Amino acid sequence: MSPALFDLYADRKSIVVVVDVLRATSTMCIAFEKGIEKMIPVSTVEEALEYRESNPNYILAAERNGAPVKGFDFGNSPQSYLELDMSGKTVVMTTTNGTKSISIAKKDHDVAIGSLLNLDAISKWLISQERDVIIFCAGWKDKFNLEDTLFAGALAQQLVDSDLYNNFCDATQAAQILWEKGKNDLFGFLDNSSHRKRLANLNIDSDIHFCLKPNQTTKIPVLKNNTLVAIDES
Amino acid sequence: MSPALFDLYADRKSIVVVVDVLRATSTMCIAFEKGIEKMIPVSTVEEALEYRESNPNYILAAERNGAPVKGFDFGNSPQSYLELDMSGKTVVMTTTNGTKSISIAKKDHDVAIGSLLNLDAISKWLISQERDVIIFCAGWKDKFNLEDTLFAGALAQQLVDSDLYNNFCDATQAAQILWEKGKNDLFGFLDNSSHRKRLANLNIDSDIHFCLKPNQTTKIPVLKNNTLVAIDES
Repeated sequence: MSPALFDLYADRKSIVVVVDVLRATSTMCIAFEKGIEKMIPVSTVEEALEYRESNPNYILAAERNGAPVKGFDFGNSPQSYLELDMSGKTVVMTTTNGTKSISIAKKDHDVAIGSLLNLDAISKWLISQERDVIIFCAGWKDKFNLEDTLFAGALAQQLVDSDLYNNFCDATQAAQILWEKGKNDLFGFLDNSSHRKRLANLNIDSDIHFCLKPNQTTKIPVLKNNTLVAIDES
Repeated sequence: MSPALFDLYADRKSIVVVVDVLRATSTMCIAFEKGIEKMIPVSTVEEALEYRESNPNYILAAERNGAPVKGFDFGNSPQSYLELDMSGKTVVMTTTNGTKSISIAKKDHDVAIGSLLNLDAISKWLISQERDVIIFCAGWKDKFNLEDTLFAGALAQQLVDSDLYNNFCDATQAAQILWEKGKNDLFGFLDNSSHRKRLANLNIDSDIHFCLKPNQTTKIPVLKNNTLVAIDES
C-alpha cells in the first residue's frame, strides 16, 4: 500500500507488479500499445537528461507533483502518446512515485508494470507464470492512495478467481473489498480521493477517465536489464 | 495504517487516537473500566521490569508476538482483568505493537486510546474537543491490518456524521468503506485476517469476540506525562 512498506512484504522471489494508476504505469502501458520499443525508467530528472546526452533520439518524459517538467518532450499524460507515431522509439521516463517504486522493487525482484489498461492481460500472464505475486502500489509520496489499491484489488481478485492463488494478506483483502465496492463506477468512487482532486486542479480530468478504463491494451511492460520491454498477452 | 507511515500524517497539533484492537488498546480500555488508576505504557520488557524495581506494587503486563511474557503478572488479554479487583492499581504494560505506537505518537502529539470497547465514548469526547484527529493504527509489525482499520473507519464515520469533521484522506475513506462492509459481522469479516489466524493459533478466540464487541466502557485513556489516566465520557 506504500513504497515505505515494501520491504515488509519483499521476499526476493515473487514477481512484483508495480502500479501507479494516475498516471505513470497507465502511461507506460499505452506507450507500448502505441509501439515504443523500450522505456528506461529512471529516478531523477538528472539521470533522464544524461540518457539524452548519450543518445539524442531518446524521448524524455518527466513529471513532478503531477505536472510535466520544463524542457522535456512529455510529462506523465498517457493521452499525449495517442496521436503520435511512436514505433520503435525509446522513452526515458521519471515520475514522482511510479519510477521510484520500480527502482525499489527491481533491487531483488522481477518487475512487471500493471494498470487498469492492461488488467486482463497482466492477470492472464501472471497466472501462466506460476509464481507468487506482490502488488506494489506506488501511492503518493509514500501515502496510501485509493486508485492504486483499487487496481491491486482487481488484480488480486482475478488471481484468486483462477484458483491458483491464495491470499492471506490483510492489505490485499482490503484492496479486494474496495475493488468490489468501486468497480462499477471507478470515477465516482474516487470522487473525494486526494489524487483525483490533485489532478483535477491541473485540469486533467480526461486523463483520469482514460486511466480508469480497463483493458485498452494487451501489452505487459516487464523490466529486463533496467529497461522496460513489452510482452504481448493477447 | 501503519506505524511506519505515521510521520507522513503527523502535524503536531491533532489528537492522535492509537488503536490496537487485538488486543493492547482493548485491554487498556477494560483495565480502566475495572478501576485501575493509571497505566504506564513502555516500549521494552526491560523498562517494565525497571518500573517494578522502583515500586513492587506495580502490576506488570507484557506481550510479545501474541503471547504473555514469562514472569509477568499479565499478558495482553483483556479478559484477564475481568475477575479481579483492580481498584486504584497501576499497571505497567508493554506489547508488540500498541505501546510502540503510543511511544511514536506521544513525541509531538496528545494521545488518546481507542478500541471498539470505547467507540461511542471516544467519538463523543473527540467531537467535544474541537480539534483535528489522526487515527493511528498499530497494525502488526508495521504491516497494515484489518481490525485496526475497521476501528478507524468506525470512528471516522462517527466524526464525519457529526458534521464537524471533513475527511480528505484516502486511507480514512478506505477505512470507512471497510467498516461499512464489515460492521454487521465483525468476527466473520475478519475470518481470513492474518491477526485472527495468529491469535486463533494461540487459542484465544474468546478474546477476539470480546475485543470486537463495541461500547463496553465509557472510559477514555489519555496520556498525561507519559502515564495513561482515564476520562469518563458517560
